Amino acid sequence: MPEPLIKPRTLSGFRDFLPAAMIPREQLMETARKVYRSYGFAPIDTPTLEHADILCGKGSDETDRQMYRFEDNGGRDVGMRFDLTVPLARFVAQHASELGMPFKRYHIATVWRGERPQAGRYREFAQCDFDTIGTTSIASDIETGLVVFDLMKAIGFDRFSIRINNRKVLNGLLNKSGLAEHSVAVLRALDKLPKIGREKVHAEMNDVTGASANQIDQILQLAEISGDRDSVLSQLEPICSGSELAQEGLQQLRDISSAADSAGIEDHNLQIDVSIARGLDYYTGTIYETFLDDLPSIGSVCSGGRYDNLAQLYTKQQLPGIGASLGLDRLLAAMQTLEMIPTTKTPADVMVVQFDSTYLNRYISIARSLRTFGLKVEVFPDAKKLNQQFKYADRRGFRAVIIAGADEFESNQVQVKWLNDGSQTSVPIDDDAKELAEMLASGLK
Amino acid sequence: MPEPLIKPRTLSGFRDFLPAAMIPREQLMETARKVYRSYGFAPIDTPTLEHADILCGKGSDETDRQMYRFEDNGGRDVGMRFDLTVPLARFVAQHASELGMPFKRYHIATVWRGERPQAGRYREFAQCDFDTIGTTSIASDIETGLVVFDLMKAIGFDRFSIRINNRKVLNGLLNKSGLAEHSVAVLRALDKLPKIGREKVHAEMNDVTGASANQIDQILQLAEISGDRDSVLSQLEPICSGSELAQEGLQQLRDISSAADSAGIEDHNLQIDVSIARGLDYYTGTIYETFLDDLPSIGSVCSGGRYDNLAQLYTKQQLPGIGASLGLDRLLAAMQTLEMIPTTKTPADVMVVQFDSTYLNRYISIARSLRTFGLKVEVFPDAKKLNQQFKYADRRGFRAVIIAGADEFESNQVQVKWLNDGSQTSVPIDDDAKELAEMLASGLK
Repeated sequence: MPEPLIKPRTLSGFRDFLPAAMIPREQLMETARKVYRSYGFAPIDTPTLEHADILCGKGSDETDRQMYRFEDNGGRDVGMRFDLTVPLARFVAQHASELGMPFKRYHIATVWRGERPQAGRYREFAQCDFDTIGTTSIASDIETGLVVFDLMKAIGFDRFSIRINNRKVLNGLLNKSGLAEHSVAVLRALDKLPKIGREKVHAEMNDVTGASANQIDQILQLAEISGDRDSVLSQLEPICSGSELAQEGLQQLRDISSAADSAGIEDHNLQIDVSIARGLDYYTGTIYETFLDDLPSIGSVCSGGRYDNLAQLYTKQQLPGIGASLGLDRLLAAMQTLEMIPTTKTPADVMVVQFDSTYLNRYISIARSLRTFGLKVEVFPDAKKLNQQFKYADRRGFRAVIIAGADEFESNQVQVKWLNDGSQTSVPIDDDAKELAEMLASGLK
Repeated sequence: MPEPLIKPRTLSGFRDFLPAAMIPREQLMETARKVYRSYGFAPIDTPTLEHADILCGKGSDETDRQMYRFEDNGGRDVGMRFDLTVPLARFVAQHASELGMPFKRYHIATVWRGERPQAGRYREFAQCDFDTIGTTSIASDIETGLVVFDLMKAIGFDRFSIRINNRKVLNGLLNKSGLAEHSVAVLRALDKLPKIGREKVHAEMNDVTGASANQIDQILQLAEISGDRDSVLSQLEPICSGSELAQEGLQQLRDISSAADSAGIEDHNLQIDVSIARGLDYYTGTIYETFLDDLPSIGSVCSGGRYDNLAQLYTKQQLPGIGASLGLDRLLAAMQTLEMIPTTKTPADVMVVQFDSTYLNRYISIARSLRTFGLKVEVFPDAKKLNQQFKYADRRGFRAVIIAGADEFESNQVQVKWLNDGSQTSVPIDDDAKELAEMLASGLK
């Protein structure tokens, strides 16, 4: 008696990636790698499993609760990484002398969080981070912005805005007003500005911090600044005066703005937005968020910032750094909504029909020749009926099929059929199929 | 009082990949992807964690013991995948109608086995598989061999041999001799041929199976066949006569050999080797192993074969297929031994020295211009002493540095210094740095 079947299924919160989803996903990761590398960021990888104390070290209660943690066969307390930042800190502390500073790395890898699955949230997802460790130079702040800019362009976006702020501006201002200890409450109130309006925020700040109307006005004034880069910088000048820290932050914003001017980056694509306050506790200088003009509601698709000390839990060495992370899942969802992703289920463009199995070696040979010209070509494996092979080609998303039988080979020709409009042409083939390759390449453009 | 530091360390059997190791690793994966795609194999991914019953379904006691298995926060019995074949079987069974047949996929992903770590064996490693599901056509057997051939060439090997056999030949022979039920014992004895010699194997086979001297001679004769493809095929002919199954296997070997001839693949690179018997229980037709001429001791670096039914545990649908797997870790170790891997720690070739921070935007601008020509260029983040910057460039493995200060910019020039011989040249730069890009590109060739 046969065994009963096991029902094929995946765990809740986990995903299979079928070709139509995996092709653009892989392409996006390759684009990220290419851009990161072009700036000299080097790839690293770290283990999926780490000693639990390493991962918990700086974890909040929330990450601890979400971590996949278990005892391995050797009785060790282990966990699956829930981000790429904690492993980076451990990695840099462990290998600092071998790595040398500054150290620029990218890391594209999977992380796991056992949170309750919900729309667009998964228990397994990829992160795509790049960081520069071991320098406080503004050159790295500038570069981080340029990498994000080049990345968005390389992915295919023109209509996006990278919003930059500097934590030192607000911190300086709070210090100046004697409100430093209330920074969390101030930021919480500020966050409500778009929803509840100026007056209510004003009241809340006064309630919670006891700040004067004048102090509160200054902070609200900061959050309401807008305009192009130069205009924002001029508006910030009087507000920052009197605080060394705020001035320092302002100068860094100026340097980034000047570099953006010099690089010909339009005001719209790189904005100074003093209302963003990402990562309150962690970031200490420049911060970045990136929004899509055509889908702002999806939130930031690439975020990051500068931090003072990456690895303090694992080493006494002070390791400042700066970095950002591309939100792969969010970006792919956005690209799908914006119809930027083709629906093909094959990475190949051309399929050679197996019209007559007698000629299998000829079909294989044509495909091999075309590959030497950089074309991606599949040979259909079975000599099935033509309409079945066409149906397969169509379903998969091939753009052209090559058909040849005895007649064609006798006259050294093949038929090329374009699947979008059904048009068909005879093309001569000689030993290296160069003419065919050129004809296909120009049609595929 | 500061908290005590957590000692940065990795779990036994797990590895950090520093840039010098990760750069060639990533490159190898990209080469594999490129070759797989050029044949129309599409990428997929499956979850790291699966329901334990899915993974255990076909597992042997050994894989069960090695599997990382635990109860998740929701009380589910889960395991980390220990190969990519079981997830593929589950995946294809689950999505068969959406995928359509034939289905060609590649999957490059990490797997985990809690085995005792030893030299060259890890608890976490990558697999790099490609398979064609849903066809028994010989075209797929041929293609699998061609993919392996193109892959080895694309990685940079010329001196390798893909060894092909067909399980039907030996099975047919055993059937004919009435020894089918002893196939495991026969193969076990055959395996010892190189070590203990013909006579002792003969004696063992007689002991265990009770086969006649004549029957044993035929089997040993099979294992001792060697020569070029045509010669092996001729030698097989008389041995296979009288068994339909063996004849069928022989015909498949002939078809592959003929396709290899037609594709101009030398006898040495693709051999018929009837002594290989990989995957006794699983494979049912063509089988593949791949050895490096210069490092045969490392074993097969790319292996696979044909199977009759991939997903019988999860579906009633019969899904035959064929595939192979590139041994990434083994291949990288071999390439290291054979000195095929550069020791650079950066993916970039060129570093722009930050000679004078006043010109930071100029340095950035030069780097950006060079990137538009496809060059990978890092700008050193700090205006440190020149010798420190040179030392950094040297340690990382940059090939050239660009140096420019007030004098150079005044005369629209930069200095290019090649780090291998210390030679230095002045190169004019205009707005798009085209001349500089061409000069660097030709020097980097």
